[in-house]
Amino acid sequence: MVTQTEEFLRLHPRESGTDAELLRSCIERLATCVQACTACADACLGESDVAGLVSCLRTDLDCADVCRAAEQVLTRRTEPRPDLERSLLQTCVVACSQCALECERHAEAHEHCRLCADTCRLCEEACRRLLAAL
Amino acid sequence: MVTQTEEFLRLHPRESGTDAELLRSCIERLATCVQACTACADACLGESDVAGLVSCLRTDLDCADVCRAAEQVLTRRTEPRPDLERSLLQTCVVACSQCALECERHAEAHEHCRLCADTCRLCEEACRRLLAAL
Amino acid sequence: MVTQTEEFLRLHPRESGTDAELLRSCIERLATCVQACTACADACLGESDVAGLVSCLRTDLDCADVCRAAEQVLTRRTEPRPDLERSLLQTCVVACSQCALECERHAEAHEHCRLCADTCRLCEEACRRLLAAL
Amino acid sequence: MVTQTEEFLRLHPRESGTDAELLRSCIERLATCVQACTACADACLGESDVAGLVSCLRTDLDCADVCRAAEQVLTRRTEPRPDLERSLLQTCVVACSQCALECERHAEAHEHCRLCADTCRLCEEACRRLLAAL
Repeated sequence: MVTQTEEFLRLHPRESGTDAELLRSCIERLATCVQACTACADACLGESDVAGLVSCLRTDLDCADVCRAAEQVLTRRTEPRPDLERSLLQTCVVACSQCALECERHAEAHEHCRLCADTCRLCEEACRRLLAAL
Repeated sequence: MVTQTEEFLRLHPRESGTDAELLRSCIERLATCVQACTACADACLGESDVAGLVSCLRTDLDCADVCRAAEQVLTRRTEPRPDLERSLLQTCVVACSQCALECERHAEAHEHCRLCADTCRLCEEACRRLLAAL
Repeated sequence: MVTQTEEFLRLHPRESGTDAELLRSCIERLATCVQACTACADACLGESDVAGLVSCLRTDLDCADVCRAAEQVLTRRTEPRPDLERSLLQTCVVACSQCALECERHAEAHEHCRLCADTCRLCEEACRRLLAAL
Repeated sequence: MVTQTEEFLRLHPRESGTDAELLRSCIERLATCVQACTACADACLGESDVAGLVSCLRTDLDCADVCRAAEQVLTRRTEPRPDLERSLLQTCVVACSQCALECERHAEAHEHCRLCADTCRLCEEACRRLLAAL
């Protein structure tokens, strides 16, 4: 099935230069990661042991903000700037790996933290693969 | 197939009160709409007739910003505020219908505008359905 | 002293139609409100009684998201859409008044909540004044 | 005069560790840069020679997204992560210097580009100074 991201990449008037499949995968995983981190932060806030989830909530919010910026920047294919893309992807790798590590600490107690950790790991991987190709 | 949004709604520690299926559908369509509007705005920017797409680009950016805010607010299920949800959904209906109308004007010339218009219409519909249930 | 917002409004190539002074004041108070709500949410997260500040943290995050969207939309002066501006400003009034009410409940215990409540009230007022002029 | 950012930094319940004055300056310049880039992008869109401003509009939007993420992350002082702060500040330096360079090319023709370039340069400088202190 053709995804929406794939269709928009195909319909863009400019030549991308970047491998379309790596780009698509990275944009989609960034979008999924933003949603997971936003949802996990709010689920943490709703838990009775919120005081033990402070660091998790904090890192969720940061990871959402950073991946959101990367999703927006990578979606734009008109005159992209590889320098900025590289630096931003490296920042996403840092944010995703920190968030995954923190969420993994709560994965046994809270299923939403486990799901968020897995999503961050997939996003980190997609960012690393795109980085290697830029 | 269970979507990620569905899983996070199910894993949230608080009772939602709101119909989970309407909520899930609305959050997912808002997320899809944000991505479509961001991609369409950049595709418009890359077209040789960008000067004729000024209004489309403008309304794409607004629609993305408004739907993004709604996606974030609706994703949070800890102590939701129906008054805010209602007002924000009404604003999304305005933003999506304006953006769809504008994109439809360019749908013959630009396939990305057609795709964006369709996505905005689906999002508008999901917002109206959730509004009716709140 | 001329503010940056004032300068950009003056330098914009299109006629605004909207009262520049009301517009400037509203954009600036929205920006200030976003910053206050983001800072208050994080300060709440850092408090030892975070469990008692769950609703405050939640409403801070919502208010920041909604006011951010409004700040972006109102900053754009190329082919503005009064219908969208009105609906979004009404949503800001709801978000700011809810956030102010909640922060006021913690204003004695936490100075950052008092400061955030005051900022939300000023923003709500600026939104109401601009609404009356649109 | 005490700024709002300064007050919130002072009222935060946790010890920051980071030099408060460098932090305040960087957060404020990031916020100012986001506003300038958003306003400049829309002013470019409203110009009769928008086709010649495509690259400027594009880099404005990227710079706004990246600096917004950094503003949010740095505002949070509960359990900050220096690794993420450093990587994100480096990304801001890239985004601001690219945006300043591009805006400077249009500074003679468009006053809003000149103002935006100056704001990006000040932001880049504040990010570099904070980076050196982290």
